[in-house]
Amino acid sequence: MNVKEIMDTEFIAVSANMTIIEASIKMEAHKRFTTPVLDNRKRLIGWITSLDVTRGFRENHKIVSDIMHSKNDIVHVYENEPARIAVLAASKHKVVSIPVLDSEDKVVGEVRTFDIVETLSKLYEIKVYKIFEAVVNELKGVTWEELMEASAIITRRETGKPVTAKEYEQRIKKSTFGEAIWATGGLEKFFVGFIAIGELVIARKVAKARK
Amino acid sequence: MNVKEIMDTEFIAVSANMTIIEASIKMEAHKRFTTPVLDNRKRLIGWITSLDVTRGFRENHKIVSDIMHSKNDIVHVYENEPARIAVLAASKHKVVSIPVLDSEDKVVGEVRTFDIVETLSKLYEIKVYKIFEAVVNELKGVTWEELMEASAIITRRETGKPVTAKEYEQRIKKSTFGEAIWATGGLEKFFVGFIAIGELVIARKVAKARK
Repeated sequence: MNVKEIMDTEFIAVSANMTIIEASIKMEAHKRFTTPVLDNRKRLIGWITSLDVTRGFRENHKIVSDIMHSKNDIVHVYENEPARIAVLAASKHKVVSIPVLDSEDKVVGEVRTFDIVETLSKLYEIKVYKIFEAVVNELKGVTWEELMEASAIITRRETGKPVTAKEYEQRIKKSTFGEAIWATGGLEKFFVGFIAIGELVIARKVAKARK
Repeated sequence: MNVKEIMDTEFIAVSANMTIIEASIKMEAHKRFTTPVLDNRKRLIGWITSLDVTRGFRENHKIVSDIMHSKNDIVHVYENEPARIAVLAASKHKVVSIPVLDSEDKVVGEVRTFDIVETLSKLYEIKVYKIFEAVVNELKGVTWEELMEASAIITRRETGKPVTAKEYEQRIKKSTFGEAIWATGGLEKFFVGFIAIGELVIARKVAKARK
């Protein structure tokens, strides 16, 4: 997945000689805390935030160039870079939005942190039973009931608490991958439990085949 | 994981009768686009953003209560709710920050979207070989070399491209879980490939035990 696929192409922009009054009206109308400053060929030359604007009003500045940060002082990414570059940049620099450039330094979009949250949380929101369904389809010769039975056995062994195959099935129909990771104590532990289930179910499949 | 564990306890706050000039200075100093408005018992009564402040300056308002949104109009979460509630709220309402309340409606922190990105991206940034290490530790009787060999076989089968066990090992030492999910085409497909590797390595382990 590239930056291009997670960027928002509906962004606003201002020019360096626009008044800060005009810029503030535009930012408020579109509910943007930040906006790129572009030259007349749509290339990125700077960046302003609504906090630069409030300071500008207090200190009686008039135009965008009086308050803007130059291009060199801000984070930006290119549309064909891997999406994780934008994710890491947002996390490291703690910014709400990152301008996305094409190969000619023209601004073609913005990656906004809540878009990243949406993309990342989709992963978390996958229901665990979807993963188990994919596994049953892959493991020819293993039924859904056998997988649930093995899962209940491993879960009982690891938690020390009674759980039936039916109860386990109900649980994974409700819980998401994100919840499962948090519940098991991290991704590695989730995989360890998962492979333990896999080992049991495969061992049973092999034993059945030998009969 | 609860909201409490991902919230930022270093937040700023303003009062309803503070001037918007004072509020803007505080927000700029702490680089905050938003701030909760608290009563004298630290309970949440409203919320302002830096865009409310720019509008306030233009329209000649004087104090915070002139420009604030009331508590009922903003998203908020409670510290003991699951963290995913805050993640979903940030994604759904496209906000940069969500106030966190205790059981008495006092503000005890804020969940900021880039904190969520940091938390979620940590999952992505786990190297794939860490997961394989956990699996080898769980699968007693299977060596690291056998796991790499099985992985290379499955990868060759699925991609049709030659890859040796050594090359596969190099690949997973470099790549992260996030990259692996994107490369395989989604979480379910990742698990299908993963279980195929598991099945092969377990079948070989069983075959070895029978000799």
